[in-house]
Amino acid sequence: MSTRKEPDVVEFLSGLFEGKTTGTPIAFLIRNKDAKTSDYENIKDVFRPSHADFTYQMKYGIRDYAGGGRGSARTLLPCVVAGAIAKQILASQGIEIQSDVIQIGEERSKSFSKDEIERILSRYREEKDTVGAVVQGIVKNTPVGLGEPAFQKFHAVLAQAMMTINAAKGFEIGEGFNAAGMRGSECNDEFMFDGKQIRTKTNHSGGVQGGITNGEDIVFKVAFKPIPSVMYPQQTVDIQGNATTIEIQGRHDVCVVPRVVPMVEAMAAMVTLDFILLKKCNKI
Amino acid sequence: MSTRKEPDVVEFLSGLFEGKTTGTPIAFLIRNKDAKTSDYENIKDVFRPSHADFTYQMKYGIRDYAGGGRGSARTLLPCVVAGAIAKQILASQGIEIQSDVIQIGEERSKSFSKDEIERILSRYREEKDTVGAVVQGIVKNTPVGLGEPAFQKFHAVLAQAMMTINAAKGFEIGEGFNAAGMRGSECNDEFMFDGKQIRTKTNHSGGVQGGITNGEDIVFKVAFKPIPSVMYPQQTVDIQGNATTIEIQGRHDVCVVPRVVPMVEAMAAMVTLDFILLKKCNKI
Amino acid sequence: MSTRKEPDVVEFLSGLFEGKTTGTPIAFLIRNKDAKTSDYENIKDVFRPSHADFTYQMKYGIRDYAGGGRGSARTLLPCVVAGAIAKQILASQGIEIQSDVIQIGEERSKSFSKDEIERILSRYREEKDTVGAVVQGIVKNTPVGLGEPAFQKFHAVLAQAMMTINAAKGFEIGEGFNAAGMRGSECNDEFMFDGKQIRTKTNHSGGVQGGITNGEDIVFKVAFKPIPSVMYPQQTVDIQGNATTIEIQGRHDVCVVPRVVPMVEAMAAMVTLDFILLKKCNKI
Amino acid sequence: MSTRKEPDVVEFLSGLFEGKTTGTPIAFLIRNKDAKTSDYENIKDVFRPSHADFTYQMKYGIRDYAGGGRGSARTLLPCVVAGAIAKQILASQGIEIQSDVIQIGEERSKSFSKDEIERILSRYREEKDTVGAVVQGIVKNTPVGLGEPAFQKFHAVLAQAMMTINAAKGFEIGEGFNAAGMRGSECNDEFMFDGKQIRTKTNHSGGVQGGITNGEDIVFKVAFKPIPSVMYPQQTVDIQGNATTIEIQGRHDVCVVPRVVPMVEAMAAMVTLDFILLKKCNKI
Repeated sequence: MSTRKEPDVVEFLSGLFEGKTTGTPIAFLIRNKDAKTSDYENIKDVFRPSHADFTYQMKYGIRDYAGGGRGSARTLLPCVVAGAIAKQILASQGIEIQSDVIQIGEERSKSFSKDEIERILSRYREEKDTVGAVVQGIVKNTPVGLGEPAFQKFHAVLAQAMMTINAAKGFEIGEGFNAAGMRGSECNDEFMFDGKQIRTKTNHSGGVQGGITNGEDIVFKVAFKPIPSVMYPQQTVDIQGNATTIEIQGRHDVCVVPRVVPMVEAMAAMVTLDFILLKKCNKI
Repeated sequence: MSTRKEPDVVEFLSGLFEGKTTGTPIAFLIRNKDAKTSDYENIKDVFRPSHADFTYQMKYGIRDYAGGGRGSARTLLPCVVAGAIAKQILASQGIEIQSDVIQIGEERSKSFSKDEIERILSRYREEKDTVGAVVQGIVKNTPVGLGEPAFQKFHAVLAQAMMTINAAKGFEIGEGFNAAGMRGSECNDEFMFDGKQIRTKTNHSGGVQGGITNGEDIVFKVAFKPIPSVMYPQQTVDIQGNATTIEIQGRHDVCVVPRVVPMVEAMAAMVTLDFILLKKCNKI
Repeated sequence: MSTRKEPDVVEFLSGLFEGKTTGTPIAFLIRNKDAKTSDYENIKDVFRPSHADFTYQMKYGIRDYAGGGRGSARTLLPCVVAGAIAKQILASQGIEIQSDVIQIGEERSKSFSKDEIERILSRYREEKDTVGAVVQGIVKNTPVGLGEPAFQKFHAVLAQAMMTINAAKGFEIGEGFNAAGMRGSECNDEFMFDGKQIRTKTNHSGGVQGGITNGEDIVFKVAFKPIPSVMYPQQTVDIQGNATTIEIQGRHDVCVVPRVVPMVEAMAAMVTLDFILLKKCNKI
Repeated sequence: MSTRKEPDVVEFLSGLFEGKTTGTPIAFLIRNKDAKTSDYENIKDVFRPSHADFTYQMKYGIRDYAGGGRGSARTLLPCVVAGAIAKQILASQGIEIQSDVIQIGEERSKSFSKDEIERILSRYREEKDTVGAVVQGIVKNTPVGLGEPAFQKFHAVLAQAMMTINAAKGFEIGEGFNAAGMRGSECNDEFMFDGKQIRTKTNHSGGVQGGITNGEDIVFKVAFKPIPSVMYPQQTVDIQGNATTIEIQGRHDVCVVPRVVPMVEAMAAMVTLDFILLKKCNKI
């Protein structure tokens, strides 16, 4: 789907011994074999619109322009690896993470298939334009009691984690912005006893009440802006402030989906696992 | 506007000497004079829908039911005080924070006046119902370079801070969820030189690129669900799981606005000030 | 023993409900009723030798001179309260903390009695001088496995905690500085099986190997310098750098012991409890 | 001096661009080429006295026995690299770190030369025994004001850093344990004005007062126990608790010095640099 070809080999450096984790931090290395500095020569002194070129240059007075440097979405790859490990641990607890692309540009669906996604994206690719998307994530079977009151509420930490993903511009838990248009009488989740445990009849809350999981599905959405690397000339300035135009070269994705989907799952897995460990300290 | 009367006296305990801050943590105490445990007797063993009663009870095996305990929005008050101090410091740097109520239930505006808010809320109050809202915040005149790459991006930390506010269900920076429906050609912010400095022609990004402020207004929105304390009977269960109905007593707000507005400003002020201090460590 | 009379009333502000902890932070307030600013007027612009006056003034450009401000040993009192709570929790796990004064000035003992301490100190008091001391602490019955490799070794965190106590100048675990003069053949702790568990025959290590507790007694020592408030004129400078003499007024202790002993225990209790909670996250 | 030959090649992975740091974390990799698992086969199921074998096995239920795993002093090597970078930055500020071996076993000196160290160690090597040591470190030309009151005092953080070094058993700042035997009249550092700035006449404090640097030399000592790998049979138990003897094979140092000296400097450099950055946030 992505036209970039980057065989990512993960070399584990520490933390594993005879196939098991030892408690030592698991370090691993993924070398970026695909980066060609020459691809980026023309952006060396020019700021690409809505990229991090300008802010990095201003913040640090220097920037590694090749491949977008630290602002590149490539830097998310280690999170996907870490998330894969977290997901294995969660699975051993019966916890599952599911995610769906539910919006691309103006098209919405309960869950776009890979073919549907590719069909939509190819349209934008032909127009040399890019497009935004919304991904929905669901964490299933979490125990009641994850999340800490006040400043480490489950959904607050989840929001931070999701907003660290490149191009993320919005986050919702449960009804999200929709809740602003609702009445309490519509939005409240009444309790019931299902024969085994206390449940809510509805899940407008998205599985979190008072910042703490209530055992229902944790349902959240993340909005992503269009990838800024459009394939036609844009107006910008160079490092001296001179007006210029830039035409971005190289191979670029049209949309964060489908690539970003495993990233959303990885971040959700890490946040959930962190809170599961933290919950162990809840009581002596 | 709020029908609860709580004279909040702030007693400063440390950190001030002859009218100046000393570098010692500023501790202060606000006693909650208005709480009457008797008001809450009927919720002692019953879980109010969409409150934190159930999750706190399950997490800790005990809960202080009076006044909602730690889940009460009253616990945000110290943040407002801290935010007021942060705002003074920011003001000395020329940084200003502004906020507006832009949606109450299904009504939207660029900025509702106090009278408009009260008129809308009184309608819901008469119906013994509650309603959600959206607040927009703007941080003006921030320097370029606030925010840290990767996991402490400016808007990611801001998102976490906003989602810690009671009843918050959604967060957007810049175009937010709207960006998902846009093309790169619409959403990118081209650069220009305004004679003094490099600026962007538009501000779809909401003042943040790559997680770092670019000097434009930081524009964000926070969605709040309706306050769950509706004033008519709701179905729920008690602590043993028995079905029951609850009718919430006491004095309750109809909507988080207007009370939540200073809280949004306070959180934005603290996040901004934290990053200003952090930026000092950017270079040796 | 101390000639200062300060009735310390602890008012609990949060975290307790009907006699039990709720999981909410336990906040408490101890008002300093004994401070008289007038007692400290003569040190307002003059730096007391080996006090924190000079460093605070230079660091912050302002200092609260009354009672020594934040540099006062009074600020340790809340730690003693927190430590008392920690000790209750540890006791419920069978863990006990014991401490002994083992050196005052040049006199050493396995454990000075209160009378002995008072007898020695009164001698220094008469001479208007002060004196240093060493306190030994022992944490008994800790589980094997407390402490984290690398940067959070049990004894490293304990060292930091002890060195935060006012006037602390040295820390030892097990043989401490004595170990530098030993051979491996003398200092190694050989293992044995005592019928129930693996133990060491000796405890030169002081209960910690590789930064992790091994189940033996955790034995450590903390050295304290003489209290700098000697009661005769000392040469110093004022805030402008002018040479002057200072004669410290007010009521001052002669030695950190016996006051510091509960502080040593409190810090040991908090460090131990922190690691017990952390150990819960050791395995999923 | 060490009989182990391990050519340590440092490969920098990130954070440098065209010879300059970019603000991105500086990651580097040092592969341990010298480890032979076969050297450690005989300790696979047996606990070496005063090593971390037992505590790691008990804490994690698994251990990487080859080369001592995470408990190996080899793990300190990255700190030496990081410290070397910190020292360059400190040097640009005029700050210098010096260290001396001042005690090996029962012999003391103001500063042992390399030849003297080797001569002493060869004696212990012949006897197949090991020995402890004391290293003194001095940080020169630090600004006044490094260190934070209460829990992040300069010397408390320095103590923690030093106690994380393998085999460290004691830490002193200034007079250290010696201060316990002193009177205030001996131990206080009186102030004077040297024509340019306020200084102390003596430096019993070791450059820190109230946890904050006063501009004098920061003088500290670290005591190390003998390396536990003595070269003759020791009594111990195996993983089932059976009594056995162990004779440690492989190549082992006789003493932590001289290897540990750069480690002491590295840790001091990192602590000092951290506080220099932190001090920038002291005032707005």
